Amino acid sequence: MRLLIVGGSDAGISAALRAREVAPDTEVTVVVADSFPNYSICGLPFYLSGEVPDWRNLAHRTVEEVERKGVKLLLDHTARAIDPASKSVTVTNSAGHSRILAYDRLVIATGAMPSKPPLEGDNLPGVHFLHSMADAFRMQQHLTHTPPHSAVIVGAGYIGLEIADALVQRGVPHVTLVVRSESVLRTTLSPSMAQVVEDELRRHGITVAKGIAVESVRARGSRLAISGTQGYEATTDLVLLAVGIRPSTELAQTAGVITGTQGAICVNREMATNVPDIYAAGDCAETWHRLLNKPTYLPLGTTAHKQGRIAGENAVGGRRQFAGSLGTQVVKVFDLAVARTGLREEDARGAGFDPLSHELRVWDHKAYYPGARELCVRVTGDRNTGRLLGAQIIGHWRSEVAKRIDSFATALFHDVHVEEMNDIDLSYAPPFSSPWDPVQMSAQAWVIADQNSSKIEKTL
Amino acid sequence: MRLLIVGGSDAGISAALRAREVAPDTEVTVVVADSFPNYSICGLPFYLSGEVPDWRNLAHRTVEEVERKGVKLLLDHTARAIDPASKSVTVTNSAGHSRILAYDRLVIATGAMPSKPPLEGDNLPGVHFLHSMADAFRMQQHLTHTPPHSAVIVGAGYIGLEIADALVQRGVPHVTLVVRSESVLRTTLSPSMAQVVEDELRRHGITVAKGIAVESVRARGSRLAISGTQGYEATTDLVLLAVGIRPSTELAQTAGVITGTQGAICVNREMATNVPDIYAAGDCAETWHRLLNKPTYLPLGTTAHKQGRIAGENAVGGRRQFAGSLGTQVVKVFDLAVARTGLREEDARGAGFDPLSHELRVWDHKAYYPGARELCVRVTGDRNTGRLLGAQIIGHWRSEVAKRIDSFATALFHDVHVEEMNDIDLSYAPPFSSPWDPVQMSAQAWVIADQNSSKIEKTL
Repeated sequence: MRLLIVGGSDAGISAALRAREVAPDTEVTVVVADSFPNYSICGLPFYLSGEVPDWRNLAHRTVEEVERKGVKLLLDHTARAIDPASKSVTVTNSAGHSRILAYDRLVIATGAMPSKPPLEGDNLPGVHFLHSMADAFRMQQHLTHTPPHSAVIVGAGYIGLEIADALVQRGVPHVTLVVRSESVLRTTLSPSMAQVVEDELRRHGITVAKGIAVESVRARGSRLAISGTQGYEATTDLVLLAVGIRPSTELAQTAGVITGTQGAICVNREMATNVPDIYAAGDCAETWHRLLNKPTYLPLGTTAHKQGRIAGENAVGGRRQFAGSLGTQVVKVFDLAVARTGLREEDARGAGFDPLSHELRVWDHKAYYPGARELCVRVTGDRNTGRLLGAQIIGHWRSEVAKRIDSFATALFHDVHVEEMNDIDLSYAPPFSSPWDPVQMSAQAWVIADQNSSKIEKTL
Repeated sequence: MRLLIVGGSDAGISAALRAREVAPDTEVTVVVADSFPNYSICGLPFYLSGEVPDWRNLAHRTVEEVERKGVKLLLDHTARAIDPASKSVTVTNSAGHSRILAYDRLVIATGAMPSKPPLEGDNLPGVHFLHSMADAFRMQQHLTHTPPHSAVIVGAGYIGLEIADALVQRGVPHVTLVVRSESVLRTTLSPSMAQVVEDELRRHGITVAKGIAVESVRARGSRLAISGTQGYEATTDLVLLAVGIRPSTELAQTAGVITGTQGAICVNREMATNVPDIYAAGDCAETWHRLLNKPTYLPLGTTAHKQGRIAGENAVGGRRQFAGSLGTQVVKVFDLAVARTGLREEDARGAGFDPLSHELRVWDHKAYYPGARELCVRVTGDRNTGRLLGAQIIGHWRSEVAKRIDSFATALFHDVHVEEMNDIDLSYAPPFSSPWDPVQMSAQAWVIADQNSSKIEKTL
């Protein structure tokens, strides 16, 4: 059995390793477009901040470790076309030479590319994207050889915020975030929670300009002039465009693979595409949403690993199903951890729920034990059924925010009522929590808010 | 409706507050044996260590806060006898004066007392127990006015270890833990995990003497001579006896309330005793174990809060059931957090499972991000069904150990297979985790260990 995988990032390598794990006789080849298979792209901001001095450490595994598992890596090769009839893929190397690789099963794990909005000047020197190791090297060069006095980051998703943090750590004196929407982390947080993050950004000297669509970047001497809606004008030394990503599906389309949500490859829950013997996984593919019960586009490293593992197992004969994403995310922004899982009120309403959200400020552990800090926990539940729909937590990055959102995520995965959070036997000692963990106190507060809102309705 | 509650610690106050929350017209009185209702007894070690300078801060709520919720507190009164026929309780105050209080419903929340093994000299000055505020004041006096040069702690449960830590922080030069069993935290951890804790104790200068039953303490001048099995002899300045607790059920027995496991009050899952209109909750009562499916004795603050809340709700007409304990616990021991949930191999075997355990050492977050530290994660599952039975985690106390055990606890609560841990959409960013969280990596390692052990069996 020959398993061919196109793409050497999280999904591709996970598929390769899983296939070898469950079917050790499989001949597994991974076509990798650059020389950096299995790199942690999520780690690039920490390389640019200086926290990770050596980029080699960003590899989840070395080439040797992957090869030792019996996976053949074809580095610096780009897959150009798939012929499902002959079950083969044409690849070219960096010198332009072509080869044809035959497969019994194929996994497409071509990932995503930065969204490039129609923007004049996005190819000027000093204008950066950050999606590949090559992008990171180029930006590192810029930061090292001509340290910028100011930088403008366009986009306030998690990459935009992590880079803002990185540039401040790197000593860039003036960092500005230009955001099209009216709040940062618009796809992750509710506006009131986003305000907490914005305050943290401002506390660290970052300018946040909201409601502005950047329209052009022009060279102005050795600097860059950037302009946008609402009369926004700025001159700066470095521009990072971080306005999102889109699935890379050009290769898939040569095989007649159907795409759907936001252009991502349509897959069933076994990660199979419409074309026989072709699977897809990771940022190029749709993601089944466990709460919405439909495919979405939610490109995340965690999901890429899960989907890749399933695609690899099923490509060699397995029948495992992807259990679905909850959209769980966490990001560190200066001293804060910012996390969410499940649906926000606005997402839930769109999906036919009758959501109610309640926010509670609560100590991360018993206030008498030194170092207690406040968490802000927002719980969203369905008023009709009492079902838990989602949660957002912001707190100090040492306040176990990430793993607290995981308690909610694990509960959400099992479809619980908000009230049931109180039944779960969670751990407690004064340095770590309270006898009711903050996730439970916020669930209790939600239940009371829900009862009060019902009472008010009855009165009206 | 008159609700009378005997006991002003976690279970009693939780019952009182919940009753007022769901039935605001209820007349709620709590009989409290001392003047410290609703104190965090779990916080006493941090008062003795000096981390909590003012003992008043240990109150979960002040007397005023409780009273503001409409709960009447009868401080410094001891309940002596219950007459279920007339539905009344005789109480005496500190001057010895008696009163009779009538009730419609009664909640017994009399807690537990330190186990006092047959031990000569346990009432000598300098020999301490630590279970009440009065105990803590007495020990604080001792530490402040005659700072000991050495201390012997008998028992290595979580109180024993927390006090060992506290005494070292307090500057006691020689601290010894004398343990009857062959490992510390015997009822919490598997022996191999306990060894990690023992290493941490030794690293902080603590002597750990195992396999020794202390037989007597004698005054020797101004010091104490302690002797035990295996010829153990030591002279010391302070002895703490922390060999466990037993349920306080003397009052309950005056009403004909039946006791069971380890002498604890038998309750159904609505926290009702065998006597009509009498409920019990907290350390005096049995605890339904969610995995063992039977009552156990597992006195924990978290459980006391949950049981109290349910008893209070049901006493005023509710029908809520206690969902059951998983035995989830965490303790901070110097730089470590030590946590477990569910069953250990030995517990599981006794309950008819065919357990397999696997231990994995794994980074708490991506190793490239500064500050990565190793976690030791032990997963126990059932070989017959693949069901998750329990987990233990030890790591640095800043490594989100407590909330990682909560991911396991939340999953265990919903009865999952070990393999299913991999399906859960947990949060990830490099400062906090890996794309597969350590709880998932350890689940994957367990599955492989399980497969390998099956293969070995087939070969034999």
